Amino acid sequence: MPKQSLDVAAILATLRARQPLVHNITNYVVMNSTANALLALGASPIMAHAIEEVEELVEMSGALVLNLGTLSKPWIAAMLKAGLHATAKGIPVVLDPVGVGASRLRTDTARSLLEQVRPVILRGNASEILALGGDMGGARGVDAQHTVAQARQSAVALAKTWGMTVAVTGAEDYVTDGRREARIRNGHPLMGRVTGTGCAASAVTGAFAAVEPDAFNAATAALVVFGVAGEWAAQRAQHPGSYGIALLDGLDAVTAEDLLADARFDVEATN
Amino acid sequence: MPKQSLDVAAILATLRARQPLVHNITNYVVMNSTANALLALGASPIMAHAIEEVEELVEMSGALVLNLGTLSKPWIAAMLKAGLHATAKGIPVVLDPVGVGASRLRTDTARSLLEQVRPVILRGNASEILALGGDMGGARGVDAQHTVAQARQSAVALAKTWGMTVAVTGAEDYVTDGRREARIRNGHPLMGRVTGTGCAASAVTGAFAAVEPDAFNAATAALVVFGVAGEWAAQRAQHPGSYGIALLDGLDAVTAEDLLADARFDVEATN
Amino acid sequence: MPKQSLDVAAILATLRARQPLVHNITNYVVMNSTANALLALGASPIMAHAIEEVEELVEMSGALVLNLGTLSKPWIAAMLKAGLHATAKGIPVVLDPVGVGASRLRTDTARSLLEQVRPVILRGNASEILALGGDMGGARGVDAQHTVAQARQSAVALAKTWGMTVAVTGAEDYVTDGRREARIRNGHPLMGRVTGTGCAASAVTGAFAAVEPDAFNAATAALVVFGVAGEWAAQRAQHPGSYGIALLDGLDAVTAEDLLADARFDVEATN
Repeated sequence: MPKQSLDVAAILATLRARQPLVHNITNYVVMNSTANALLALGASPIMAHAIEEVEELVEMSGALVLNLGTLSKPWIAAMLKAGLHATAKGIPVVLDPVGVGASRLRTDTARSLLEQVRPVILRGNASEILALGGDMGGARGVDAQHTVAQARQSAVALAKTWGMTVAVTGAEDYVTDGRREARIRNGHPLMGRVTGTGCAASAVTGAFAAVEPDAFNAATAALVVFGVAGEWAAQRAQHPGSYGIALLDGLDAVTAEDLLADARFDVEATN
Repeated sequence: MPKQSLDVAAILATLRARQPLVHNITNYVVMNSTANALLALGASPIMAHAIEEVEELVEMSGALVLNLGTLSKPWIAAMLKAGLHATAKGIPVVLDPVGVGASRLRTDTARSLLEQVRPVILRGNASEILALGGDMGGARGVDAQHTVAQARQSAVALAKTWGMTVAVTGAEDYVTDGRREARIRNGHPLMGRVTGTGCAASAVTGAFAAVEPDAFNAATAALVVFGVAGEWAAQRAQHPGSYGIALLDGLDAVTAEDLLADARFDVEATN
Repeated sequence: MPKQSLDVAAILATLRARQPLVHNITNYVVMNSTANALLALGASPIMAHAIEEVEELVEMSGALVLNLGTLSKPWIAAMLKAGLHATAKGIPVVLDPVGVGASRLRTDTARSLLEQVRPVILRGNASEILALGGDMGGARGVDAQHTVAQARQSAVALAKTWGMTVAVTGAEDYVTDGRREARIRNGHPLMGRVTGTGCAASAVTGAFAAVEPDAFNAATAALVVFGVAGEWAAQRAQHPGSYGIALLDGLDAVTAEDLLADARFDVEATN
C-alpha cells in the first residue's frame, strides 16, 4: 500500500477547518502543554474532570482523551463515566496509559478502561504497550525502556483483542489496527527531553479522530503531523526548553507543503 | 469622557511599586502561566486551595481571584470560604466563570459565588457573560461563540443587578459598572490561540484591583495593559507557542511610554 | 576548605550518565516546569501522588522530592507514606516547605514531615527556613521577606537538630549540614521573576542526591549548576517569560567548561 494512500494534509485541513472540541481528562503535569498543543494545531481543548459534569462536556466534544499520568481514585471514576458516555454516544475515545506497569493502580485502571470503555485508539510508548499486553513483569515507569520493534507483537495482539487501533511511539512510530500497519519515521530525539510530548501526541490523535472516522488513519495522520512539527521545531531550537515551545509553534506552522516534503511513513496491509 | 480620564500608566506604576500579593484559586491548566503572568507584571502570586488555609492566605493578599476552569466539589467549597472571607475583610474578589453555561455544575457554582461572595469584578468572554445573564440556553463550553457586542446588554444588567464591574473580553473588550463603560481595542488574535490568556487577564485584573480602589478603573487599566502587552508580543512572535512566552515578556516590558503610544480605549458615562 | 574540594562537574557528569529517576510529589503550579527542569538536566521525572501507588513508584526512584506548594489533606497523607517508605529504603528525601509560616496547615505539615520522614535535605528560601526554625511569627507567604544571612543561624540549628543538610536559596545561596557550610554566588535576579524556580532547584537537588551520597555535596553541587544555568539564561533572555525557557535550556547546555569558568562558591568547615 503506497504512501499516497493516506492524505495526511487533507485530514489536517479538515481538522483546521472544523476546529473540533477535544475533551481531555489528563494529568496535571501536561494540562497546559496539551491544551496549547491542541490550540496550536487548530483544535479546541476542554480540560475538565468533575464527575458531575463530564457527561455534559463530553457530549459537546468531538473526541475524548483519557490519560493516566497523575492518577487518583476520583479521577478514575470520572474517566470511566466520561468514557462510557462517549462510547455510548459514538464519540471516539483515545486512551493514553501513562506509566502502566509501574504500579498496580495504573495497570488495573488501564485494563479496566480498556474493557469497559472500549477506546478506539490506544497510544503509548513501547514499555506501556508491552505492559498492557502482559509481555513484561514491570516497567521502569514513565520512561520507555523498550524499542517500538519489541512492542510490535503486543500492539497487534491488543489491536485484535480489543478491536482498536494501537499506536506505539518512539524513535519510529508504529500504528496497527490488526489488519493494517503504519511505520512513521518522523520526529526528533529532543521530543523525549520535553515532558508531555507523548501526552500531546495522544491529544493530537484525539483531534484527528474527531474529524477522521477511520481510527487507524486518524492515528497515523496525527503522528505524521506531530513528527513533522517535531522536525520543524528541531530546526529552530537546540535545547529542551525552547524546543518545547518550538514544537507548539510547529503544530501551527506545518503546512500541506511541509507534509508533502517531509512526511516519511508507510502503510501496508498486515497480511 | 475623554481617554485621558484614566491614567493607566500611573496605576501600573503603583502596582509595580507595591507588588501586591494576589491569591488565586484557579484551574490546573493555567496555574503556571497565571503565576508567571502576575510575576511578569510585577505582582506576587499565591496559588492555594486547601479549605484549611484559604482564610489565612487571603487575609495577607491584596486581591482574590476565583476561576472555575477545572471545577470540582472540594474546590468550590474552598472558593466559597475564601471568597466570603475576602469580601468580609474588604479584599476585592475577581470571578472568572470559565465555561459557565457548558454544564449545570458551572452555572450553579458561578451563580452561587455571585450571590454569596459578591465579587467586585466579573471577567468572562461573551458566551460566559451571556450564559450568566440568562440570555442563552447553553454555550459550547470554554470557547467564546458570541461577540462582545452581543454580550453588552447582559453585562450591563449583571453589573446593575450585582453592583459590580463586568469585563467582557474578545476582539474588543468591554467593561461596565452600570454607570460607565469602557471599550478597549488593544490585543491580538494570537491571544486566542494560547490557553489561559483569559484566565491571566482575570488574574492581572485582580492585581490592578489590589492597588486601584475603583474597580471599573482597575478592570479597564488591566485590560489595556494586557492588550498592549499582547501587541508587544505579536511584534516578536508569529506562532502560538512562542507568542505565549512573548506575552509574559510583554507584561514585564510594557512601559508608560508604550501605553501612551499604543493604548486604544474610550471611557464614557453610560447615560 | 578550598573550592576545588567539590568537583561539581564530576557529579553532574555522573548524573547525566545515570539519568536518575526522581519521584516528585509537588504542587500543581510547577509540575510541568519541574519535570522539564529534571529532563533538561539529564534526569528522569516521575510525578505521582496517589496514596495507592506512591510506595511502588518511590521504590524505583533514586530520590523523592516533597513540595508543599499546593497542599491539601490527601496529598499530605501521600507525602507521608511516600516519605516514610523512601527513608526506610535508604532513598534520599528532599523537603521543600513552600510557604511554611504562612498558614498553620503548612507549618504543621512541614514540621510533621521533618519529624517523621527525616528528609536528607531541606531546601527553602530565607523566610521559610526562619519560619521552620521558629525564629519568626509569620511570613508573607511564598515570598522570601528575609535575606539568606538572616536565616543562617536557623539553618545551622535545623541542620544540627535533624541531622540533615539545609539549603537556603536567595541572592546568595547558603548550604549547611551543621559541620560544613557552602556559599554560592551564582544565579540571577530574573530567577525570582519566574514561578517555580525554587521548586525546580529542589527537584534538581533531588537529582543530585540520587547520584551523590554526601547530601551536603549534592545540595551544593545542585545549586551551583542551577545558578550557572541561571546565568547562562540571563545572557540569552531579558524578560521573565523567555528567561524561564532559557533557564531550562541552560540546565541542558551547561558543560564542565562552563562550571570551571563560572562557578563561584566556597565550602568550609563550620568549626
